[in-house]
Amino acid sequence: MQPITCEELEQICRHILEQAGATQEDASISAEVLVLTDMRGVFSHGCMRLKVMVDCLQSGGFHSGVEPVIEHETPISAVMDASAGIGLVASVKATRLAIDKARNNGIGVVLMHNSHHNGASGIYSMMCADQGLIGLAMTNVPPIMAVTGSNSNSIGNNPFSYACPAGKYRAIMIDIAMSTVASGKLVMYAEEKKPIPYGWLLDSMGNDTNDPSEHFKSGSTLLPFAGHKGYALAVMVESLAGALSGAAVLIGNRPWNKDPLVPGNTGHTFIALNPSYLNPGVEFVPRIEKMIETMRAAPKAAGVERIYYPGELEIEKEREAEQQGIMLPPASLASMREAARLTGVILPDALQ
Amino acid sequence: MQPITCEELEQICRHILEQAGATQEDASISAEVLVLTDMRGVFSHGCMRLKVMVDCLQSGGFHSGVEPVIEHETPISAVMDASAGIGLVASVKATRLAIDKARNNGIGVVLMHNSHHNGASGIYSMMCADQGLIGLAMTNVPPIMAVTGSNSNSIGNNPFSYACPAGKYRAIMIDIAMSTVASGKLVMYAEEKKPIPYGWLLDSMGNDTNDPSEHFKSGSTLLPFAGHKGYALAVMVESLAGALSGAAVLIGNRPWNKDPLVPGNTGHTFIALNPSYLNPGVEFVPRIEKMIETMRAAPKAAGVERIYYPGELEIEKEREAEQQGIMLPPASLASMREAARLTGVILPDALQ
Repeated sequence: MQPITCEELEQICRHILEQAGATQEDASISAEVLVLTDMRGVFSHGCMRLKVMVDCLQSGGFHSGVEPVIEHETPISAVMDASAGIGLVASVKATRLAIDKARNNGIGVVLMHNSHHNGASGIYSMMCADQGLIGLAMTNVPPIMAVTGSNSNSIGNNPFSYACPAGKYRAIMIDIAMSTVASGKLVMYAEEKKPIPYGWLLDSMGNDTNDPSEHFKSGSTLLPFAGHKGYALAVMVESLAGALSGAAVLIGNRPWNKDPLVPGNTGHTFIALNPSYLNPGVEFVPRIEKMIETMRAAPKAAGVERIYYPGELEIEKEREAEQQGIMLPPASLASMREAARLTGVILPDALQ
Repeated sequence: MQPITCEELEQICRHILEQAGATQEDASISAEVLVLTDMRGVFSHGCMRLKVMVDCLQSGGFHSGVEPVIEHETPISAVMDASAGIGLVASVKATRLAIDKARNNGIGVVLMHNSHHNGASGIYSMMCADQGLIGLAMTNVPPIMAVTGSNSNSIGNNPFSYACPAGKYRAIMIDIAMSTVASGKLVMYAEEKKPIPYGWLLDSMGNDTNDPSEHFKSGSTLLPFAGHKGYALAVMVESLAGALSGAAVLIGNRPWNKDPLVPGNTGHTFIALNPSYLNPGVEFVPRIEKMIETMRAAPKAAGVERIYYPGELEIEKEREAEQQGIMLPPASLASMREAARLTGVILPDALQ
């Protein structure tokens, strides 16, 4: 199997999404985000989601051709209704608005409700960092994790992302879900029929399991990382991206991949901060470069060849993919093939 | 041993700090914060720190009677020089400024440098929540944790705190350090000569250890929680509270408890958000109350009697301490006795 070029992959994603009913603009933004996610090696949130997106578009859960509506606006903030549009597209537009506000007025906080799953949160924080701004992006998701003390799906694993510009190192970028692992990673293990470590998942009986396919059974649930810390951070995201944005909260949030007919009313929060507005007295980017260099120079543990700054691996993979193309894992290929079948699209040889 | 009333404990703390050289105002604010921290059961960051504070005041590392200086200000932000003052006092004043800005202009971001260890970050986020605002507080601390790939003290465990108002439940409050456990907890285990679980600490040879006293040996280091997630969040805090504030970064940050002579140049970031400014279209507090009730009603795991929302335990303990006083643990008593000895203060019977 040969790698596929990013351009070709983007083109085919765009085509599939258009055939599923997305407008040209929606398909184009979505394809760009999905491929960028795969380029960074976050396969669990890239083209692997294409089949579910097609389901949601074809069944009407995702609206296409709608614009997010600004319901309330100040120079430093906005509340947006995503109009039940594609989460990736709505989030790109919300992030652009946060960036504009932070550029012009120092800070931009954009709250969004009536949206859908928006893929890898790191996409949006990185958009800010690439514009010289500090970015935070978070989203609630339907309950797939146990709150501390429960053995059932009682809260989302609510991804949180942070990025800041880092000059010659491009950016520091953090993107974490509050479960030990993200749901997409379990999907990938299941597609590849690989066992998972214990401590990731409770099965439908509430027992620890190493079988990733248990994830698809009703009643199974993810576990928060570091016990109460993962739980607490998930509640923080739920309060900001869910309660404050006006979106559905906890069990009100509909699972897009299980119930593609119904809009999800997922919520997001995007925050952009302009470092030179907040503190014109420091040279922020050179200080971040120095910080990275100091961390890299720390004494290494036995067997460690290199210390990575957060986001370095993703940035490196993106650059490699630009030059060499992408080798998609089996789970992504399977999803694309199914999406192509559902939309009557013929895949190029590299994806057959 | 009898519990001591909060009023009596606060009075004796104030007296000790004044005798160590703190002004009346500085002693008064510090004592209030230390006792409130103990009331919430966070003993590792309360009066247990009194002895080190006395050291720093007596040796001149902590300046007293200084005011934080506003170096740059906008309607929604400020940069403050803490003037090498007591971290607790400077942080209370910075938080008050963030609260004022958020009340009047929707958002308040206050960056502070040239400060010192500021105790439990939850104190400051909770100040915001008690005023009906969303609060975030974070601080960098001297390197006591290994960045992922290193076996040495290469980054602080950089506490991060979040709180939001919760009506009849008072607040949701999160306060986490990025190591598996906070340094103060190891100090407490060491004072009580109790073994710690493996996975908390590497000894000076870089090996996992269950001996908390290894924490005091040069070259030992804490481990981040959940691997790269704790590391990544520590870097986020370092970039905001350290690099952006203009404070010392990583190894530039001086350890107050080991080097009390020299000002630490620690940095903090305080963010207050006004929910009704950001989204006047939702009733934020009732939505948070509902969220808490939904989480509480989740099916419980075997043996679990109650599901707690983040911060509930601390809020409950604070209320109990108001009514019944505080039983300080041995490590706190030992620190207070030493602080009293150094300042020539006679402790009341309840603390002898």
